Amino acid sequence: MNKLVIVGTVAFDAIETPFGKTDKILGGAATFIGLAASHFGVNTAAVSVVGGDFPEAYLKLLSDKNIDINGIEIVENGKTFFWSGKYHNDMNSRDTLATELNVLANFNPVVPKAFRNADYVMLGNLHPIVQLSVLEQMDKNPKLVVLDTMNFWMDNALEELHEVIKKVDVITINDAEARQLTGEYSLVVAARKIHEMGPRYVVIKKGEHGALLFHHEHVFFAPALPLEEVFDPTGAGDTFAGGFIGYLAGTGDTSFENMKNAIIYGSTLASFCVEKFGTERMQDLTQQEVLKRLKQFKNLTQFDISLTNAL
Amino acid sequence: MNKLVIVGTVAFDAIETPFGKTDKILGGAATFIGLAASHFGVNTAAVSVVGGDFPEAYLKLLSDKNIDINGIEIVENGKTFFWSGKYHNDMNSRDTLATELNVLANFNPVVPKAFRNADYVMLGNLHPIVQLSVLEQMDKNPKLVVLDTMNFWMDNALEELHEVIKKVDVITINDAEARQLTGEYSLVVAARKIHEMGPRYVVIKKGEHGALLFHHEHVFFAPALPLEEVFDPTGAGDTFAGGFIGYLAGTGDTSFENMKNAIIYGSTLASFCVEKFGTERMQDLTQQEVLKRLKQFKNLTQFDISLTNAL
Repeated sequence: MNKLVIVGTVAFDAIETPFGKTDKILGGAATFIGLAASHFGVNTAAVSVVGGDFPEAYLKLLSDKNIDINGIEIVENGKTFFWSGKYHNDMNSRDTLATELNVLANFNPVVPKAFRNADYVMLGNLHPIVQLSVLEQMDKNPKLVVLDTMNFWMDNALEELHEVIKKVDVITINDAEARQLTGEYSLVVAARKIHEMGPRYVVIKKGEHGALLFHHEHVFFAPALPLEEVFDPTGAGDTFAGGFIGYLAGTGDTSFENMKNAIIYGSTLASFCVEKFGTERMQDLTQQEVLKRLKQFKNLTQFDISLTNAL
Repeated sequence: MNKLVIVGTVAFDAIETPFGKTDKILGGAATFIGLAASHFGVNTAAVSVVGGDFPEAYLKLLSDKNIDINGIEIVENGKTFFWSGKYHNDMNSRDTLATELNVLANFNPVVPKAFRNADYVMLGNLHPIVQLSVLEQMDKNPKLVVLDTMNFWMDNALEELHEVIKKVDVITINDAEARQLTGEYSLVVAARKIHEMGPRYVVIKKGEHGALLFHHEHVFFAPALPLEEVFDPTGAGDTFAGGFIGYLAGTGDTSFENMKNAIIYGSTLASFCVEKFGTERMQDLTQQEVLKRLKQFKNLTQFDISLTNAL
């Protein structure tokens, strides 16, 4: 069974959408990534930090999904990272109402010894210094390192971000961030420039408009499933990334052809994530439901034009 | 050979983009639709009106593509419809600099007798009264009527627009227009409401974000081909529609499965249209080039997840 290390936040979120609002609920990049990756029979460890206020039940929820939580440091006299946001009516933009770093401010990630030989590493959105530290702790070069990041680090830690970008195989980034990072409007040109920064694979997430996977001259596109309503987009990007790397680790196949499937799995899982608040929908998601939705994705995108007598 | 009637503008366009600008060049919905449909071996007639200022060479260009031009009225003492626009840097928005209706103001379309039994009718973007008039001239119910329209008619002739929407099989409309027509943000819900207005098939065009085809509970999505640069988007929507109905008329198969292929052909042809100013790229486009790009579309969208042992 392949090993997967996930570093990222484990957090409290408070979310407001046009459909309602929540108190502090379970959130964080590592949480969403871990829940998504748990669908693929991978030996997974989460590396993160929480405060003494973090409920035992939330940790149990993760370990019940076979996520090793020995790498989640508990700072007993500290408070857990907290994020609060409010989505606008179109669900495509949001205001951050609060960001309390708390224990995250002094986070020194420690990869559990048993996972330092992992072949798969997912660097969830965090300070690039923290992401680099995880890579440095690995005993050998992993087979595949996937990096997620965001515009905040481009604004505040660009040099360190470039250090980590240089060292990863895959970067996942949204369209606005790809444009910011490269100064190019065309996503095709932006992807080419990001290749030159290091990553052999560039995934550009376009939210409700799907995701693009670039590998030099090769490109693949997966739409987001058209939904009647998006209830809460929080965690969709992390769920996508978790499905992506989870599928690759589960199959042990990092070819471009298999990455296409990984993108489809990521999109499929993300389409569930947005149906309820926070991690709620992901907690009890069954294989049966995933298979049914994969079939919808096939119907949504697959066609049958024979190119020999096409016209 | 199936017959196709296209009604729409045949016009002069003057276009400004970040890459350059043109004088008055050949444009118009019927022009782009006709050039796209000409790839499918269909017996096509264009129904339109031009002024005495319209060059013979432009009409010859259409008839050289086997488009019957007997339905293009020439008002010798009138001037041809003229549109001028300037695209912004992102190419997704534009300012209209001039709209001179000229001969279009009194356009009474006449479908040539030989085409009144056509099975395929494409109602290009025009006043809904003109579109209705074309339908009324048909000897029998066509097998498939496709309607294109825009927000201008929703603002200025909504009642007449609903009259024509009621009578068509397929409507093509962009995402903002689908939202305006229905008052629904979710495109899934918007499509359902448009179904209730009449059309069994709803195509929602999202520009660089692709196109969705809805047929009640069935949905299909085609991305736009990711391009290094969009040189001039003028006519892309009409080219898409022309490829769509041209392929359906050429194959004579209006099943949902074949409509998926038609959407792919429409997207493929539109991806060429935007590479040069106006109709320039479409004038000399070869079957070989189309086939090559269809292959790119396959690589872009097709994946191979077996659903029997998917996870």
